[in-house]
Amino acid sequence: MTATGGGRPTVTSRVLDILEAFSADRAALTITEIGRRAGLPLSTAHRLVGELARWGALERDADGRYRVGLRLFEVAALAPRGPALRTAAMPFLEDLYEATHENVHLAVLDGLDVVYIERISARDAVHVFSRVGGRWPAHATGVGLALLAHAGVDVQERAIAAPLRRFTDRTIATGAELRRVLAEVRRTGVAISDGQVETFALSVGAPVYGPDDAVAAAVAIVVPSDGWDARALIPVVRASARGISRALGAPRALRSPETARHDR
Amino acid sequence: MTATGGGRPTVTSRVLDILEAFSADRAALTITEIGRRAGLPLSTAHRLVGELARWGALERDADGRYRVGLRLFEVAALAPRGPALRTAAMPFLEDLYEATHENVHLAVLDGLDVVYIERISARDAVHVFSRVGGRWPAHATGVGLALLAHAGVDVQERAIAAPLRRFTDRTIATGAELRRVLAEVRRTGVAISDGQVETFALSVGAPVYGPDDAVAAAVAIVVPSDGWDARALIPVVRASARGISRALGAPRALRSPETARHDR
Repeated sequence: MTATGGGRPTVTSRVLDILEAFSADRAALTITEIGRRAGLPLSTAHRLVGELARWGALERDADGRYRVGLRLFEVAALAPRGPALRTAAMPFLEDLYEATHENVHLAVLDGLDVVYIERISARDAVHVFSRVGGRWPAHATGVGLALLAHAGVDVQERAIAAPLRRFTDRTIATGAELRRVLAEVRRTGVAISDGQVETFALSVGAPVYGPDDAVAAAVAIVVPSDGWDARALIPVVRASARGISRALGAPRALRSPETARHDR
Repeated sequence: MTATGGGRPTVTSRVLDILEAFSADRAALTITEIGRRAGLPLSTAHRLVGELARWGALERDADGRYRVGLRLFEVAALAPRGPALRTAAMPFLEDLYEATHENVHLAVLDGLDVVYIERISARDAVHVFSRVGGRWPAHATGVGLALLAHAGVDVQERAIAAPLRRFTDRTIATGAELRRVLAEVRRTGVAISDGQVETFALSVGAPVYGPDDAVAAAVAIVVPSDGWDARALIPVVRASARGISRALGAPRALRSPETARHDR
């Protein structure tokens, strides 16, 4: 697939296909591998990779393989839904982390997936699959359910109609169940994913609102199912979500009494 | 400047110039502004920005201005010197943060600048200029001095010969002084920047080693000069740096007795 979505690939789309050739499990590639994965003739891959490397979008390591470069990290740090969002949220994520010393997630919705913007994990925290910059189907996770529940009706209906990937026997498996859960999340203001990604992990998530009072992100705490009660985590996750919303300038968080209590 | 470094700009270099048009203080740009900053005809800017936006490298906001997109954040998350390094370091940065509840920095060297990979700050921490993805002259900061002291001789000599930007009257101002300080950092294993960026901030940094036992990054703690003694921070910063080096698989951190003590 090219950035132009069909038709004769442009140079721009080829450059983007080269960037797309890299993935978490393929973070270091030779020019031949890049060419193959991007569907480019070796000579073209050579020329474009050379330009990308000179600029710093790619870095060549000692054994001649290429990796994503620091310069791209610098540019990406300007993404409003990336580090910019993360920076506003970080102090509150810290507070949330210190409340449990397990895992804290900050994520945004992209299509029917969540993309993790931040993850804070203790060395001995319960294992989670999330990775900063990583994607995960929204229907299975605490952050994802919090985001889906407040997404546009069209997005919600697409999620309800879509095949729901199953991770455990507790993963939401039918559109009807997802519809019910999303309504529940809107009613309670929190999303609970208990053993729906991994049987031993419990996630409690809450929506984060932006300056336009629309949901901009979601924050969640992930702990071992065994030994934790979701109800005990709801207040702190909710307070954290409100704090981040306030930091983002969400009117509803500025006027909310819960926020006032949180501030005292 | 284009990615090809002169000559007729290629499409690739134009795409990269478009990305380069965005900066921390210019995070949202109209197509006209992008064209002007990237030195492109409006029609060209229109076409290239359109392709970048379709792929997700740029995002168009409600008022029609463009920002760096989430997709670029996803790709940049694969940069080994970016989030990958950060992920290995994070648990140790957490420990370091909890030791002072001020500021913790993780940075790498790029030319004569440091680029901040991670920053953890308490809401009420002493003010620091650092920003994830941001750059700062290496000679002024704790992380920077720790990195420069262990950089190649050519890099050190360039730094010593270069004009040294002055931030306060305590900023290292002469090549001779910088040379002396770098030798001191190598001798003690820690770098101290006291009031050299802002008069009221004290930074203590230490080098982080990679799998090849070369310095891969530096970690630092930044606290108010007033009320903190650098000597009290040296052990915890050193222990943190060794812990991160060990997590990165640095042989010297695996065999070091200090590390063993740190593990007990």
